[in-house]
Amino acid sequence: EFHAFARDLHPYDLTQIYRELDPEDSGHFLIRLQTEQLADMIEMMSGQEQADIFQALGPDRSVDVMEQMDDADLTRFLQDLPPAKREELLSYMHLSSSSTLRKLLGYPPESAGRLMSDRFISISAEDTVQEATEHIRRSAAMSDTISYLYVVDQERRLAGVVSYHDLFFAEDHQLIGDLMKKRIVSASVTMDQEEAAQLIQRYEFLALPVVDEESRLCGIITVDDILDIVVSEADEDIAKMGGGSKDIDFDTKAIVAVRRRLPWLILLLFIGLISGSIVNFFENTLNQIVALAFFMPMIAGMTGNTGTQSLAVVVRGLNGRKLNAKTVWKLIRRELIVGIVIGISCGLLITVIAYFWQGNLVLGGIIGVSLLATLIIGTLTGTCIPLLLSRFKVDPAVASGPLITTLNDILSLFIYFGIASRFLGML
Amino acid sequence: EFHAFARDLHPYDLTQIYRELDPEDSGHFLIRLQTEQLADMIEMMSGQEQADIFQALGPDRSVDVMEQMDDADLTRFLQDLPPAKREELLSYMHLSSSSTLRKLLGYPPESAGRLMSDRFISISAEDTVQEATEHIRRSAAMSDTISYLYVVDQERRLAGVVSYHDLFFAEDHQLIGDLMKKRIVSASVTMDQEEAAQLIQRYEFLALPVVDEESRLCGIITVDDILDIVVSEADEDIAKMGGGSKDIDFDTKAIVAVRRRLPWLILLLFIGLISGSIVNFFENTLNQIVALAFFMPMIAGMTGNTGTQSLAVVVRGLNGRKLNAKTVWKLIRRELIVGIVIGISCGLLITVIAYFWQGNLVLGGIIGVSLLATLIIGTLTGTCIPLLLSRFKVDPAVASGPLITTLNDILSLFIYFGIASRFLGML
Ligand SMILES: [Mg+2]
Ligand SMILES: [Mg+2]
Ligand SMILES: [Mg+2]
Ligand SMILES: [Mg+2]
Ligand SMILES: [Mg+2]
Ligand SMILES: [Mg+2]
Ligand SMILES: [Mg+2]
Ligand SMILES: [Mg+2]
Ligand SMILES: [Mg+2]
Ligand SMILES: [Mg+2]
Ligand SMILES: [Mg+2]
Ligand SMILES: [Mg+2]
Ligand SMILES: [Mg+2]
Repeated sequence: EFHAFARDLHPYDLTQIYRELDPEDSGHFLIRLQTEQLADMIEMMSGQEQADIFQALGPDRSVDVMEQMDDADLTRFLQDLPPAKREELLSYMHLSSSSTLRKLLGYPPESAGRLMSDRFISISAEDTVQEATEHIRRSAAMSDTISYLYVVDQERRLAGVVSYHDLFFAEDHQLIGDLMKKRIVSASVTMDQEEAAQLIQRYEFLALPVVDEESRLCGIITVDDILDIVVSEADEDIAKMGGGSKDIDFDTKAIVAVRRRLPWLILLLFIGLISGSIVNFFENTLNQIVALAFFMPMIAGMTGNTGTQSLAVVVRGLNGRKLNAKTVWKLIRRELIVGIVIGISCGLLITVIAYFWQGNLVLGGIIGVSLLATLIIGTLTGTCIPLLLSRFKVDPAVASGPLITTLNDILSLFIYFGIASRFLGML
Repeated sequence: EFHAFARDLHPYDLTQIYRELDPEDSGHFLIRLQTEQLADMIEMMSGQEQADIFQALGPDRSVDVMEQMDDADLTRFLQDLPPAKREELLSYMHLSSSSTLRKLLGYPPESAGRLMSDRFISISAEDTVQEATEHIRRSAAMSDTISYLYVVDQERRLAGVVSYHDLFFAEDHQLIGDLMKKRIVSASVTMDQEEAAQLIQRYEFLALPVVDEESRLCGIITVDDILDIVVSEADEDIAKMGGGSKDIDFDTKAIVAVRRRLPWLILLLFIGLISGSIVNFFENTLNQIVALAFFMPMIAGMTGNTGTQSLAVVVRGLNGRKLNAKTVWKLIRRELIVGIVIGISCGLLITVIAYFWQGNLVLGGIIGVSLLATLIIGTLTGTCIPLLLSRFKVDPAVASGPLITTLNDILSLFIYFGIASRFLGML
């Protein structure tokens, strides 16, 4: 009756039960689950949990389970393994399975090819509705995850799409070719996963066919995997804005969180000392007008603030977009205008405030002009640095909020003290 | 042949064509589309585009189109309209439609109730497979968006779920009650949309049933709408981290972007001046040891950096979670430990650096202790402020990266100069 109990549960429920069990019980639980239930459960888990379970199962049962798993989930697991471990697991599998998986793992990281599932049904335009229906019945093991049937020609090129719904309303003798939708939207195997996600989102698809260079159908991407991608890309972008790691959440242990945050902070500490050397360099100026120090934090802070505002726009906009030169220049031009307008507004405001606070119009003017200049620079660095990094395919974590803020500290202090030294005689 | 041409296209394709047309052609295009095609197209559009089209269509045709639209999309459109305009449109509709919509609009903003579609089919456990199949055929107009059939009892309480796939493999005479899955996962009408999104993501559902307080089935939420929610919640979180508005993207006009960013920057400017008054307050200390100014930007910057790292973790973790006191204390405790470890590491490092740079061990010690203290404070503000704001349901945009950074500027300068003044005699 354990099997019946397990069958009534959803695979996600099984993962929740498994997570609650203590070590010895979890071993029994894994033994008693049927291979297919186990495969379904493992598909829902994180890479670390999957590795632990395969370790516990041993090679023979692991391979049985892997043969039952969806390619998309298996690729996700295998791609994060150390190469030696991955090779070991692949070597145990049937040659046909392992060569398929090797092919999937050969597509670029974060490409549509890596997300492909083999759980799809392809039929011919010359098939009748009845033949297609029988095809579905023969594919029972996977048809519960299927939303559309794909129509291919003799070279396996994608020719049309039919939904379950279309079959339901058709007569048995009708030809699939007369029923199918010929307007097909598909991803190519090398398309970026974020671009594929945007196709699914815009067209409200439940699955998207993926084709190779010769337009041959290679697999499908399902909406559940796209939902995972969208969440993980958002985690990455938010981590980027915060200068942390996307792998830190509420459950991460303190020591792990420190290990992931500290290297980055130490780098920023050294960059931050450059700001110190700028102030050091202008020590004479500062010695003569200590009041300059009062406005230092505000100017550095505001430059960082406008920079992160621009950064947020760029980080979000880069998702799943190929930027052509025209878009880039339009964006930079827009942000330049924004920087100028914001710079003039805040510059005038601070001139008036500084004048009333310090009773010195020249000082007010120096601070106002500095803020104008630094806000323009800050806006441009917040825009251009992430664009440049993405252009040169640098790890996006580098283009983080703290990096922009720290760089803008340096630039703004240099500009501020530079302007102040020049007008020192007038003060 | 225009209708045939339009029918072969996907509604999203129609929106793309519509967007390319110049004003006079777009009017013709709207007239020539069939009401159902028009409804499908409008469902895919943004609120502003929808409003423009309904304006162009005039009240009579607008109502015809609205009657054909999915409740989920219509609610999304109506909820953002000015109340007078909304009432006007609702008053033109059939009483049964408008009262349903009023009910949906009565659910809390960002709740599952607001996302409900009426395009679902409910059947009885006593129905046979054949009866259920006929039920689907009678519901042709909506069945293309349907993935599951929901089984309800006589009080309309949710009792089970059957998929198209289950029907395909069943015999005509089988009872739905024997076929259905009795383990049901559902959302309540008042559940937060992010919680509903997590259910759909975890269980890999294509649709989620929504029930009221008496467990009666009220509607379904489909995965395409959840994908939109997840993207818009991520946009919001990223804007929060950047201190901007989620309504700024690559296509926003400069003047609009300024209007959305400037108020926030001006507020931060005034808060930033508090940092200035702290430096002003400690003018004597600074006059005696100008070298203190060299480390000011680094200390203020590092405090902001660790604060935004913590903020990113909290912003991301708050999504779709109800935080109980235990989780909150566990998180605060973890971040406190992180702050202490990071503070000790960076504090020791900067003590050594400052000693070698300035040749003064006491100065080095002051800077090291200050950094230790400010990093702990910075980590805690980055953690606690967003938690407090979310606790008191303050607009999440307030808990932004720049706010944390600016507050941490103030706190860090206060601590730094406070410690320095106390040990001034020893320098
Ligand atoms: Mg399976
Ligand atoms: Mg999943
Ligand atoms: Mg799967
Ligand atoms: Mg999967
Ligand atoms: Mg990407
Ligand atoms: Mg991304
Ligand atoms: Mg990435
Ligand atoms: Mg429709
Ligand atoms: Mg949509
Ligand atoms: Mg919709
Ligand atoms: Mg929410
Ligand atoms: Mg949110
Ligand atoms: Mg919100």
